[in-house]
Amino acid sequence: MKKIKVTVWNEFRHERQNKEVKEIYPDGIHGAIKDILLECDDIEVTTATLDEPENGLTDEVLNNTDVLIWWGHMAHGEVLDTVVEKVKDRVLRDGMGFIPLHSGHHSKVFKAIIGTTGDLTWGNNQKELIWNIMPQHPIAAGIPVRFELKEEMYGEPFFIPAPDELIFSSWYEQGNVFRSGCCYYKGLGKVFYFQPGHEECRSFYNKYVRRIIQNAVHWAAPNLCVKRDSGCKHQPKSVFEELAEGIEE
Amino acid sequence: MKKIKVTVWNEFRHERQNKEVKEIYPDGIHGAIKDILLECDDIEVTTATLDEPENGLTDEVLNNTDVLIWWGHMAHGEVLDTVVEKVKDRVLRDGMGFIPLHSGHHSKVFKAIIGTTGDLTWGNNQKELIWNIMPQHPIAAGIPVRFELKEEMYGEPFFIPAPDELIFSSWYEQGNVFRSGCCYYKGLGKVFYFQPGHEECRSFYNKYVRRIIQNAVHWAAPNLCVKRDSGCKHQPKSVFEELAEGIEE
Amino acid sequence: MKKIKVTVWNEFRHERQNKEVKEIYPDGIHGAIKDILLECDDIEVTTATLDEPENGLTDEVLNNTDVLIWWGHMAHGEVLDTVVEKVKDRVLRDGMGFIPLHSGHHSKVFKAIIGTTGDLTWGNNQKELIWNIMPQHPIAAGIPVRFELKEEMYGEPFFIPAPDELIFSSWYEQGNVFRSGCCYYKGLGKVFYFQPGHEECRSFYNKYVRRIIQNAVHWAAPNLCVKRDSGCKHQPKSVFEELAEGIEE
Amino acid sequence: MKKIKVTVWNEFRHERQNKEVKEIYPDGIHGAIKDILLECDDIEVTTATLDEPENGLTDEVLNNTDVLIWWGHMAHGEVLDTVVEKVKDRVLRDGMGFIPLHSGHHSKVFKAIIGTTGDLTWGNNQKELIWNIMPQHPIAAGIPVRFELKEEMYGEPFFIPAPDELIFSSWYEQGNVFRSGCCYYKGLGKVFYFQPGHEECRSFYNKYVRRIIQNAVHWAAPNLCVKRDSGCKHQPKSVFEELAEGIEE
Repeated sequence: MKKIKVTVWNEFRHERQNKEVKEIYPDGIHGAIKDILLECDDIEVTTATLDEPENGLTDEVLNNTDVLIWWGHMAHGEVLDTVVEKVKDRVLRDGMGFIPLHSGHHSKVFKAIIGTTGDLTWGNNQKELIWNIMPQHPIAAGIPVRFELKEEMYGEPFFIPAPDELIFSSWYEQGNVFRSGCCYYKGLGKVFYFQPGHEECRSFYNKYVRRIIQNAVHWAAPNLCVKRDSGCKHQPKSVFEELAEGIEE
Repeated sequence: MKKIKVTVWNEFRHERQNKEVKEIYPDGIHGAIKDILLECDDIEVTTATLDEPENGLTDEVLNNTDVLIWWGHMAHGEVLDTVVEKVKDRVLRDGMGFIPLHSGHHSKVFKAIIGTTGDLTWGNNQKELIWNIMPQHPIAAGIPVRFELKEEMYGEPFFIPAPDELIFSSWYEQGNVFRSGCCYYKGLGKVFYFQPGHEECRSFYNKYVRRIIQNAVHWAAPNLCVKRDSGCKHQPKSVFEELAEGIEE
Repeated sequence: MKKIKVTVWNEFRHERQNKEVKEIYPDGIHGAIKDILLECDDIEVTTATLDEPENGLTDEVLNNTDVLIWWGHMAHGEVLDTVVEKVKDRVLRDGMGFIPLHSGHHSKVFKAIIGTTGDLTWGNNQKELIWNIMPQHPIAAGIPVRFELKEEMYGEPFFIPAPDELIFSSWYEQGNVFRSGCCYYKGLGKVFYFQPGHEECRSFYNKYVRRIIQNAVHWAAPNLCVKRDSGCKHQPKSVFEELAEGIEE
Repeated sequence: MKKIKVTVWNEFRHERQNKEVKEIYPDGIHGAIKDILLECDDIEVTTATLDEPENGLTDEVLNNTDVLIWWGHMAHGEVLDTVVEKVKDRVLRDGMGFIPLHSGHHSKVFKAIIGTTGDLTWGNNQKELIWNIMPQHPIAAGIPVRFELKEEMYGEPFFIPAPDELIFSSWYEQGNVFRSGCCYYKGLGKVFYFQPGHEECRSFYNKYVRRIIQNAVHWAAPNLCVKRDSGCKHQPKSVFEELAEGIEE
């Protein structure tokens, strides 16, 4: 069975600078997300972090990535523009899946791929209820009508284009709402933005957050063969090549 | 200047049966909505109610209606099926605008036009915050980032198809969220569903609710000429006829 | 491995009344579609036809159907209204997938579920080019940039609501275009309309049409577990039940 | 009556370098588009071109532009990155309308605002039929079911995100289809991409192309007051300011 190759990218600064965050995520947020994906037999995971050479995203890494998960916050500006361009191209032209989490809404990559400022309203950590408003969507498989987190508040207006599919809508106890699970089809790729994941909270240990991230990886993988009996076969390269034939560049 | 002809349809039962409702809306909910629209120089308003012959929606009335506003609740089942068919046809085939308010989500007409059960979660009257999540849309013109109402709670899951344009998203103090302002393009017509308007509340006196209803009427009117200097000219009939030419029926 | 249960419904009149059609589809159109699906190890297929009792769609059949494929044309009016209501309910409330083919655009079921007249422009059999405009969608997996059929012309304006996902767009040699592959999320269910399948043509033998129908069944099946390693597990009933809790009916 | 302020931006190279183009558009393509808009009493037009200082788009010009029309082709790369950033910000943060025409699909501004490579298939000048597939949309007001042009062929796959509203779909005589009229809501702004306008063709003299451009300007203008009786009042600045309050940047 061919596996989905996932690279989990993490800024990895909070966990090294802040004792409380380190206690929550001792192996880094990328480590916690890696653990989530290791529960799936059909996924292979590697990690990459900001302070590695080329931000850990060399051509070799990117060309062997089917889905890229992105966690960044305090150091968005330090991500290399050359890396941003490469990631964007991989998504738009090669169909690599892209899953920005939490403050990834302000990452250079998300802003460039979506065409948005990424601006939103934000506030204190508080009770969040995530409502499942598209239960028939594969990313919502196994998710109940709603579940509760303690999270940093992200609120509307969120200056994104209307999602192609809006899966989750969040309620916060202090009066805000937020489009918290948003799918986009961009170029040949698929993008899923998901709100939870503040470094001071424990959302990556929540069973529903974990299931959603697993679901999202399967959804965002480049056109998997849907004949599941024969395993997880990726769209043969030749089809993408054919699709690219005659394309003006 | 040619005016937009609006018919406000109201079930008109609560106001006659319940003293408290009558005090809030002494001229009926249709009377209150009529007042909202009379603030606009370019709108002509008439009203129709359930207990009139043919539910007040004779061919003559419907054929002279550009936009139909709908308020019903306790007597959805009493609306004549022949009337439902005619209204649906006027929307889909002639482009009449349709604006169901509040419990109109369960009206026969809404369910038939949208193709939905109209089911949702509901609860007590409580504090509602309506967030403006599409400020660039004409229905949101003049509406602030958010405003507050006391309203009956309507919550997700709301089993509607994803709106073509989601303008408002609501927060309720007891933990619910709701897609509270939803646009659909259906056949030749436009539909706007808006949550507020419970008979025990006073939402139709709220200045933002009023502005939204006014905006929605202008948006839902059949293809108005956008050259506003020359007044509000409706799409000439001949274009609809041309559009209908060669259509298999 | 749990399999996807598909019921192929066919009007089955042309094949019995018209010699030429019978030569093309000697086992009926339902027989030809059944053969398409038997190529997939994870699908179980049964068939049902108009002239069987209850149109072949008894409660037992419907309650054991994950995805319903629909081919009808000359006898739309003969389908029982009780059957239409049941099919609609199974899609909206239980999440059964629904795949109307070709002239199914005018079936009572499609019109009721989508909320449309289903009207379109139509013409002679001619060359059709189907363009793949959403190659990253699972229904487009394995489909080239474009492929050619001889088909009955279906053209715009097609009075459907804008599809949630528009996968295919068709060109006809006599000057028409058509949205020929349209996805909708409706209630708890998924719907895919696909243009090909005129009884006088041979489209159900085309390898790309076959692959698209196979893909569409997998896409429309009620929320399959995406952990493919563990086979094709359907969304446990309990989640639907939980989703239905507290729903106003 | 407050007017909509439109700036027509043109690369203005073909018309100076190519005799045939100059004969078609002696005052430049910007001159021809200006003429189209001067037919509307409620529009004020100015023009700007690539070879002016700051590409003609100084802060003063941009801050006095409600809607920016864009025609560029051979010199996309010469547009200043600082100008691209400013235009993008005006659209996303201030709600300026943006209307890229024809080869504007590959302009830096379109690619940055939409988040796309802008790639498409292209070919020779040939017969194009533009089908009106969303007749109820204000941009389609006054436009027949279809009309004919001679145009440069632009074809699918067009690697744009699915338009929020797809108004026109084109047929080309050599076998291609194209999503030729696409609306996007981006940040606070509205964007309309329209296919026609090759420099060797005469599309800007076609009455329907002219009407569509007029309609699009009215649609894309920042939230016009919909009370047309009182003239074309723009959304008061204070609302944008309020909308921006509390926004994380």
